[in-house]
Amino acid sequence: MASPINIGIVGLGNVGGGTLEILADNCDRISRKLGRPLAVKAICSRSIAESVPAAANHFPDAVRTADWREVVKNLDVQIVVELVGGTTVANEIIEAAIANGKSVVTANKELMAQRGAELWQLADAAGVGLAMEASVAGGIPILTALREGIAGDRIEKILAILNGTCNFILTEMERRGDSLDVVLAEAQKLGYAEADPSADIDGFDARAKLALLAALTFGVRIKPESISTEGIRRIRDIDFLYANRLDHTVRLVASAADCPEGLFLSVRPALLPRQAILSNVSGSYNAIWAAGAHGADTFYYGRGAGPTPTGVAVVSDLISLARELVKGEPTHASPFAHIDLEEREPTSLEEEVRGYYLRFRVRDRPGIIAELARLLAAANISVDAVLQEPSFDKADLPFVITTEPAPRRAILQAVASMARLDFLVDPPLALPLEPGIGS
Amino acid sequence: MASPINIGIVGLGNVGGGTLEILADNCDRISRKLGRPLAVKAICSRSIAESVPAAANHFPDAVRTADWREVVKNLDVQIVVELVGGTTVANEIIEAAIANGKSVVTANKELMAQRGAELWQLADAAGVGLAMEASVAGGIPILTALREGIAGDRIEKILAILNGTCNFILTEMERRGDSLDVVLAEAQKLGYAEADPSADIDGFDARAKLALLAALTFGVRIKPESISTEGIRRIRDIDFLYANRLDHTVRLVASAADCPEGLFLSVRPALLPRQAILSNVSGSYNAIWAAGAHGADTFYYGRGAGPTPTGVAVVSDLISLARELVKGEPTHASPFAHIDLEEREPTSLEEEVRGYYLRFRVRDRPGIIAELARLLAAANISVDAVLQEPSFDKADLPFVITTEPAPRRAILQAVASMARLDFLVDPPLALPLEPGIGS
Repeated sequence: MASPINIGIVGLGNVGGGTLEILADNCDRISRKLGRPLAVKAICSRSIAESVPAAANHFPDAVRTADWREVVKNLDVQIVVELVGGTTVANEIIEAAIANGKSVVTANKELMAQRGAELWQLADAAGVGLAMEASVAGGIPILTALREGIAGDRIEKILAILNGTCNFILTEMERRGDSLDVVLAEAQKLGYAEADPSADIDGFDARAKLALLAALTFGVRIKPESISTEGIRRIRDIDFLYANRLDHTVRLVASAADCPEGLFLSVRPALLPRQAILSNVSGSYNAIWAAGAHGADTFYYGRGAGPTPTGVAVVSDLISLARELVKGEPTHASPFAHIDLEEREPTSLEEEVRGYYLRFRVRDRPGIIAELARLLAAANISVDAVLQEPSFDKADLPFVITTEPAPRRAILQAVASMARLDFLVDPPLALPLEPGIGS
Repeated sequence: MASPINIGIVGLGNVGGGTLEILADNCDRISRKLGRPLAVKAICSRSIAESVPAAANHFPDAVRTADWREVVKNLDVQIVVELVGGTTVANEIIEAAIANGKSVVTANKELMAQRGAELWQLADAAGVGLAMEASVAGGIPILTALREGIAGDRIEKILAILNGTCNFILTEMERRGDSLDVVLAEAQKLGYAEADPSADIDGFDARAKLALLAALTFGVRIKPESISTEGIRRIRDIDFLYANRLDHTVRLVASAADCPEGLFLSVRPALLPRQAILSNVSGSYNAIWAAGAHGADTFYYGRGAGPTPTGVAVVSDLISLARELVKGEPTHASPFAHIDLEEREPTSLEEEVRGYYLRFRVRDRPGIIAELARLLAAANISVDAVLQEPSFDKADLPFVITTEPAPRRAILQAVASMARLDFLVDPPLALPLEPGIGS
């Protein structure tokens, strides 16, 4: 067996532990794919003096350090794995690794969404590799699929479920009829949701992943904060009842469409038709649907997070970069599909046309529907259906109006004018009806 | 813009036409990914004097020839696309292209299943690339996923729907309650099935794809003809009725499992639980479910055939090989995940343990169930359930016995002993119950 390819791992949290576990368990299999072993030469975490993941014991010869500089400067290390997260120290680690001639694998979606293109320029100039499969959708190999597998297609639209915490919460609310608060508390207890759940349930995590997906799919450079983002806090158990009446369900949907009208990007709760394969993605699974102009649609499904699913993506990237190093004259591929990313602002969603689900909570009195219908008509929006389940609290009565397709601008205008009505318990909830793609 | 990468296409049937269409339509997009255009320098088909696909007119400068030798010897051509199918001339074309220093893209599943490993050795020795995404599952980028995206995982099992014609026939039989003959005739009229449908409905097409999937997943070299293969000819509309009663459906399932008991490979109709995502794959779509030891399960879905879906895979491979050529020092990757494929025989399915669906057609008389139950007991098989829909023809009465999990050997023994019974209209149909994986 030829000499190993040596790696150093910085960050020994969940994903670091999962990565070490896979490297230990799959050692022989990886050698059969690579022609050489992958050897862990250095591991680093701030708290290495107190604890390391159990899997680290499979690598007794690895240098243990609390200082990441010792890893990026280690002369034996050929590939540095950055798993510390965040955007400050992680950026320093990656830049220093590249400057020291090391290839880099990262699972850092926030950093890669913000600075991926610059970091690749640095890596390319230094003749090293940069790989980031784990940053896009955890254990779903969507980066490879978009960069290589379906690179020949013209992808027109992507609809995706990119946050496992939200999907777990929504599917449990639907299954059990519980409120978001109850299910969220349980998800926190199970470790599916953070103590501060904002990054997940306010959509910021999905937004960073969508920025990377858009970069990969359309060759555009999008600031995550320019993506219209809405979380799931306002979804109530009653919304699943009404959605089901409409043969739909509610999911946090990340959507990217490049069409003649513009580049539309959004993360928001939406109604998905039951027959759409995406609506059958349950629990903490993630999935991506890509509609291609030529290849028809393809669909990718798996664990979007978790120590070993994300670890699989990290180890897969290690194998790809190591393959290049084994060949001696590495000509590393960009982690993006395109040579250059084009700077583009997402188009305002105001002109995007969708049917809408409008859910109201009202203090019941006669004339409410007439009043709401009048305001919809004033915004030039046609009502499709009115749904009202019987026997709810008359002081907080939920009901739903669905509309014919209309520009979002008109919907927002109608909702704003409705918000002033004194019979509303809270402002109307407006969820788009995503056209169902797929069987 | 730098000079183009030049390609030659041999074979202008459906896939050749689809490939040309995509190359014409996506010309600018491909240049943005590659930094250079892909230029079609030569096209070849036996009937080029009579007709070419309309999309060929986008490439007026391409040499047109009926002799493939002119393409593989053309000094301008850097990548040869082999789309003639079959295993004789196609093999000659690929070997000649490699000998002439050209990289090769192929969509030829039969040839790659039989000779892929040898052809890659030739290509590697010649320093050229060989790519075959389109040969595995048409428009589903499963080769890329297995070779790179989830290469770090240890895949334990694959369950897949790999033949769109069979899936179309089975889903239409289920939806409409029609017989296989009726639906097959319609599929032939729609162009979904060949005049001689054997390659599809007897499972040979799926078998070649499964051999390639097993090679990619487990690093094994499997002769397609060593895979236990059974087609769908014996499936009747009544089987969907009974399967649905059991909350299952019937699909032609390709299965590969590498476990301590051996390497189990099969293509056969099987019962899939309704809640398995694979059972929701309808019409001519294909899908692959991979159960990984670390990454949990991933699922891939798309068009397994058709001019443009397969063309997307061909063009994606062209982009990948061209990327290498652009870099000047190409270090082409193997189309397989492993350095070497290990010669292995599939383990006999006799020891494989499954519950079974046994469907009988009998001339009704008292004591039939007792007799069948006695033969099952003699083979040490426990009955799980007996299902009999009322009011069928008493001279050809279908009913079903499901069994507890038992070795296939025992099931085959019981079925063989039953086949001699004079009350049977035809031999019992035995379909395994595939354990459902997925949500």
